[in-house]
Amino acid sequence: MEKKTYSPGILQYIPFFYVIWSDDLVSASEINVVQKAINEDTSLSNQDRIQLHAWLDVKQPPPNGELKQWKHTISNSKVKLVESDTYPLSTFSQNVVCHYKEVCPFNDQLKHIEVNLGIQPNHYNHLFDVEVEHETTSHYYDAKEIDTILKGRHAMVIDGFREVVKNPLFKWDIHRTKEEFREVVLKQVQFLADKGYGSIAYPKGYGGTGDMEGYAAIFENMMYVDGSLTIKFGVQFGLFGGSIQKLGTKKHHDHYLKRAGEAKLLGCFAMTETGHGSNVRGIKTTATYHQETDCIIIHTPGKNDNKEYIGNALHSKMASVFAQLIVDGKNEGVHAVLVPLRNDKHELLPGIVVEDNGYKLGLNGVDNGKIWFNQVSVPRENLLNKYGDITDEGTYYSDIKNPNKRFFTMLGTLVGGRICVARAGLGGAKMALAVAIRHSLKRRQFNDSIKIQEDLLMDYPSHQLRLTPLVASAYVYHAALDNMMAVYCDDSLPDKRKVETQVAGLKSIITWYANDAIQECREACGGKGYLIENRIADLKGDVDIFTTFEGDNNVLLQLAAKGVLSDFKAEFNSAGFSSVLKLLGTQLTDKLATINPVYSNKVDKEHLYNPKFHRHAFDYRTRRLTYTAAMRIRDYIKKGIPSYQAFLKVQTHLLALGKAYSVELAYNTFVDFVADIPAEKHRLLFQKLGTLYALYEIRKDADWFLEQGYLGSTKSKAIRQRVERLCTELRPHIGVLVDGFGIPEHCMTAPIAR
Amino acid sequence: MEKKTYSPGILQYIPFFYVIWSDDLVSASEINVVQKAINEDTSLSNQDRIQLHAWLDVKQPPPNGELKQWKHTISNSKVKLVESDTYPLSTFSQNVVCHYKEVCPFNDQLKHIEVNLGIQPNHYNHLFDVEVEHETTSHYYDAKEIDTILKGRHAMVIDGFREVVKNPLFKWDIHRTKEEFREVVLKQVQFLADKGYGSIAYPKGYGGTGDMEGYAAIFENMMYVDGSLTIKFGVQFGLFGGSIQKLGTKKHHDHYLKRAGEAKLLGCFAMTETGHGSNVRGIKTTATYHQETDCIIIHTPGKNDNKEYIGNALHSKMASVFAQLIVDGKNEGVHAVLVPLRNDKHELLPGIVVEDNGYKLGLNGVDNGKIWFNQVSVPRENLLNKYGDITDEGTYYSDIKNPNKRFFTMLGTLVGGRICVARAGLGGAKMALAVAIRHSLKRRQFNDSIKIQEDLLMDYPSHQLRLTPLVASAYVYHAALDNMMAVYCDDSLPDKRKVETQVAGLKSIITWYANDAIQECREACGGKGYLIENRIADLKGDVDIFTTFEGDNNVLLQLAAKGVLSDFKAEFNSAGFSSVLKLLGTQLTDKLATINPVYSNKVDKEHLYNPKFHRHAFDYRTRRLTYTAAMRIRDYIKKGIPSYQAFLKVQTHLLALGKAYSVELAYNTFVDFVADIPAEKHRLLFQKLGTLYALYEIRKDADWFLEQGYLGSTKSKAIRQRVERLCTELRPHIGVLVDGFGIPEHCMTAPIAR
Repeated sequence: MEKKTYSPGILQYIPFFYVIWSDDLVSASEINVVQKAINEDTSLSNQDRIQLHAWLDVKQPPPNGELKQWKHTISNSKVKLVESDTYPLSTFSQNVVCHYKEVCPFNDQLKHIEVNLGIQPNHYNHLFDVEVEHETTSHYYDAKEIDTILKGRHAMVIDGFREVVKNPLFKWDIHRTKEEFREVVLKQVQFLADKGYGSIAYPKGYGGTGDMEGYAAIFENMMYVDGSLTIKFGVQFGLFGGSIQKLGTKKHHDHYLKRAGEAKLLGCFAMTETGHGSNVRGIKTTATYHQETDCIIIHTPGKNDNKEYIGNALHSKMASVFAQLIVDGKNEGVHAVLVPLRNDKHELLPGIVVEDNGYKLGLNGVDNGKIWFNQVSVPRENLLNKYGDITDEGTYYSDIKNPNKRFFTMLGTLVGGRICVARAGLGGAKMALAVAIRHSLKRRQFNDSIKIQEDLLMDYPSHQLRLTPLVASAYVYHAALDNMMAVYCDDSLPDKRKVETQVAGLKSIITWYANDAIQECREACGGKGYLIENRIADLKGDVDIFTTFEGDNNVLLQLAAKGVLSDFKAEFNSAGFSSVLKLLGTQLTDKLATINPVYSNKVDKEHLYNPKFHRHAFDYRTRRLTYTAAMRIRDYIKKGIPSYQAFLKVQTHLLALGKAYSVELAYNTFVDFVADIPAEKHRLLFQKLGTLYALYEIRKDADWFLEQGYLGSTKSKAIRQRVERLCTELRPHIGVLVDGFGIPEHCMTAPIAR
Repeated sequence: MEKKTYSPGILQYIPFFYVIWSDDLVSASEINVVQKAINEDTSLSNQDRIQLHAWLDVKQPPPNGELKQWKHTISNSKVKLVESDTYPLSTFSQNVVCHYKEVCPFNDQLKHIEVNLGIQPNHYNHLFDVEVEHETTSHYYDAKEIDTILKGRHAMVIDGFREVVKNPLFKWDIHRTKEEFREVVLKQVQFLADKGYGSIAYPKGYGGTGDMEGYAAIFENMMYVDGSLTIKFGVQFGLFGGSIQKLGTKKHHDHYLKRAGEAKLLGCFAMTETGHGSNVRGIKTTATYHQETDCIIIHTPGKNDNKEYIGNALHSKMASVFAQLIVDGKNEGVHAVLVPLRNDKHELLPGIVVEDNGYKLGLNGVDNGKIWFNQVSVPRENLLNKYGDITDEGTYYSDIKNPNKRFFTMLGTLVGGRICVARAGLGGAKMALAVAIRHSLKRRQFNDSIKIQEDLLMDYPSHQLRLTPLVASAYVYHAALDNMMAVYCDDSLPDKRKVETQVAGLKSIITWYANDAIQECREACGGKGYLIENRIADLKGDVDIFTTFEGDNNVLLQLAAKGVLSDFKAEFNSAGFSSVLKLLGTQLTDKLATINPVYSNKVDKEHLYNPKFHRHAFDYRTRRLTYTAAMRIRDYIKKGIPSYQAFLKVQTHLLALGKAYSVELAYNTFVDFVADIPAEKHRLLFQKLGTLYALYEIRKDADWFLEQGYLGSTKSKAIRQRVERLCTELRPHIGVLVDGFGIPEHCMTAPIAR
């Protein structure tokens, strides 16, 4: 090849031009950045400037021969590329011109290009045939600072908890026998209760600090220790204790709450039956009031009516039993009654049968069991009577007259548990991501013959694409759940109906996300991910059931969708319904007016990275799906189809609506969260995470947006490219981002993550 | 409501009209069927006919008031809907008119509509307020006949095998301790070897029948017994024995093959190292020829160079060790050498260290271990010398001069194992689907207040949509893998390069499919799916690693894509390359010419159900992705980027190409398979499964098809609706379809599936 020589002014730009033109993604705004830099670069002669501008013409890109010359020039420069330099490409350019001479002016215009184009070493180091000094992770950000942002107001309780689990009792180990595993977990639960964590969410008089938000935060952190511990803890303090706290009254609190929080009274939450899981209202266990003895008789009437899958069933002394309350021959609906199960010797009381549920895919440290009641009598006071009571005269009384509303009010008190399940799922996903990414920052496989070392897994574009959006999602969901719990606990917002809708949706999308993330991590670690010692396998088995318990995700998403539709629901079958639809129709049309071909094909970076675009896209989707679902249901109803069946016919539509609503909610919460981050440096990083999440989610549903004409082909393709690009841009920080989850090193036992 | 009376002629049509108009999906072709039936119905008066035609105007559909009248008429008819009637809606109509009178003419035109519109009871029974006599599954098809079609030429060997595993030794049980589990599995393997199954694929002189296809079929069926058994069996007979058979020569066969097939010589396949999994060519273990002693020295040079995850490592007496063969100081590349590991007392031989890999997410009945070699000497004859040998003079010799080609020829002999892994994955998916679907044909949850019973899970549209396409996919992949093995075994096709490409792709998409299917089944069974006793949990743990072993799916898909590109590959960097691209460009342009707006918005049923459309769509996608990948790579190379790095930059594109190619291959194979089914009755059912698979796969990639303009919005939406509709149409046969997998009842131990 004929060797070409360049003036020093041009020479310093050549590495940049080579990166820009050999890359796929040269947009107008990027060209602009470079043009501006050239114009302001006083080190250039006019001739240099003309030449450089000529090489920036998108319509007439530099010929391939020119690019080869550039590459040749770079390769023969003998200059080393050092990734840990603050501005590695600018420094590289500087050295190409000056060859490491001491006096060599650093060109701020080059730095300007490097920063504004978001050029990262892993964008280009594989393009050059020069020696590369690799750095697996950048030190621009500090994991501790990120962790502090995530912990927010709960830093003290979280830090304290992370310290407590340093105790050897919490050392991770393999437990294959359920009996032995359960004993270990029980000890861990009791230890945490001793430290006051069991009652943290209870009122002050009962050993707690009323800190439900703190409870949720430690619940997530508990997943770093073990899934079985987390769930057993949740059953004892959240479900059993929570039912006493939320459904009981002072007499119950005084009698039981403190002891429950101290794990001195072990209990279970007996709601689900073999025949009735999702349809709680249809449970068959009866609680019949017997006036002569002033007692309530708990009874399992038939096959499949036994309580099923009840956590803590083998260790419990007492159960919160959900049953149809029958007073004076009338069924007053589902109520909870406290039923002692065992005596002090831990023998079952008369009429009670408990059977071990046996081995499960995961959570084998939790003692799930089936429970049968044969005419078991308990005093009337054992009825958890906050929302419905039996008077001294033996008649039923409730402040909430509508039995439907009463039922949902009772269930509504359990919404906090759903937030916690989602947080535990998120904790599992964070843990798996931390393991997989730490591994992929060490593991090398395959190589280019020119290089000495094989490539790091994390430097493969496909590896970046499979893991980085999942990390971004973890950040978004963290903020969403933290805020959701704050709203749930805010007593100034008494109407919890909206919260219920929102939690139902978030629990579904986040527990599904957690499972997908853990699975991706397992595969990304290859065979190593399959070994129990590396923790991902356990996380997979444990988190799996989160999609089912505390409400099956498909059922919850329909609940969420119905919540979204609820403003019209009251109007179904009435004259007002069509006017509501018309109103919504108008609003939609207004929105639609902005979706013109220019908008649906707008592909510049500023637009695609702008939260306004993301919010608009998510808002459009939710509204459109709401409107079309409502229209379809209305049409069925107009034809005389009962609403139950009309809803059945649009079931898949409702699932889509539930998901859309939840993604929008999560993203909007995150945007607000980011706006409050004080340091710009961190805000920029979090914004990038939010952008990646948004574009990734839009891409997942690109078929729908394309069908609606909301996205044009060009824009849809551009978003795909931007997702890949963002993953690469985040590559230098990916190590810090998973370390920023704050998983204590004493919990990071996976050999591949150490 | 004012009661309207209809003439008997009209009355008999009313149930049909109600179903048609209250449904979402009234297409032109469907209206046509009804119009034709009315015209040919001699039981109608002219006036009736005019009225009925008036109700068929899509532009002026019958008013909602009319529909309500119809519903009222039906509800008040007191007629019972009996799902098990051969033509339930026609019979229902007949009874609405005649009220069960004995003499009542059966109207063939109604039957004609019912058949041609594919109306199934579950399309409409929820629309009517009448008593419904439910039948969970239709008896129109016979599971045994379906099973016979799937077994094909291998019926005898499969039936024999299914009978053999009736032996109590194969009774499914929970094994939590790996040592105990491994003993059970070892006994099972030895039992099957005694029955001749171990050597079935070996030549006649060595105890076998040379039936590799039969081997693959029983391998799939073995998954119904247990995953660990399947994999242990595959390691002993397929990998260890297979390496002797395929890489060794007569002396090895005579010495070892028969004993390997009888499980009298237990062995392992020591290829993977801790540091090198996917990149086999980079393994570090050395096999150095020592001329003085005429021996080969096997050695593990450094940390992470030990053999890793080797199945059968704890039970084996011998290993097929893959190592860099060094002769006379020169590295001749990777070769396999037989190395004795233990003596008769099962003590490790000098220089050998084996360590248990410990517990895994699944397959805990397989003894995986790490192996280190410290200067272990074996005679020269132990080199498996089919493709490369050391002569008596101590020099290296191979017929295949190109070391690259030699390496891939050796690996190519292992392609059969990849087909088997995919089949085992498929077996796991079939098992999980059978459990989940049998459960959902018994389990009820929620109900309409009007009905007495709660609804069957399988009658929920969302449940149909989540499971039915997975059942259809199982049928398609069954045919694809069966055929793939036949092609692999066909010695008249000596060029196995194409087979390798195809197997790499099919293994990837099918093992991923299997994992997704098993996960969906787990969730579809709720908490019951989480219990080990119901088998899905074990399948999930066992099949998980199939995406990684025998070639990581992401790596294999790139291999497949590169195979597709290989016709151009030879031309890379040469003048001929652009002319090849131009040729491909022309062909693509020809194809593109047919994608006009009429085609991309064609939504009639005939078109959407036509295999020509599916094949066209799949072919278009593969070609387009091939062309654009090739163009992108060419552009990079023209700019001087080395081809390794150019491939890296299009990695995600290659993954998409690999998937597209494999889906097309599977579907095309299935279409050919269906064409050979003799009975039309069965052909129709299998066609419907193929159609569902095709439309489901097109929908999964709808964003891409929309971006390309291949699909218009209307067509894309119509396909979505068709997928839902096909799931409903297959609902009556779903029970038979999973029973048709032929899983022996003695293997169906899951309590929820019994």
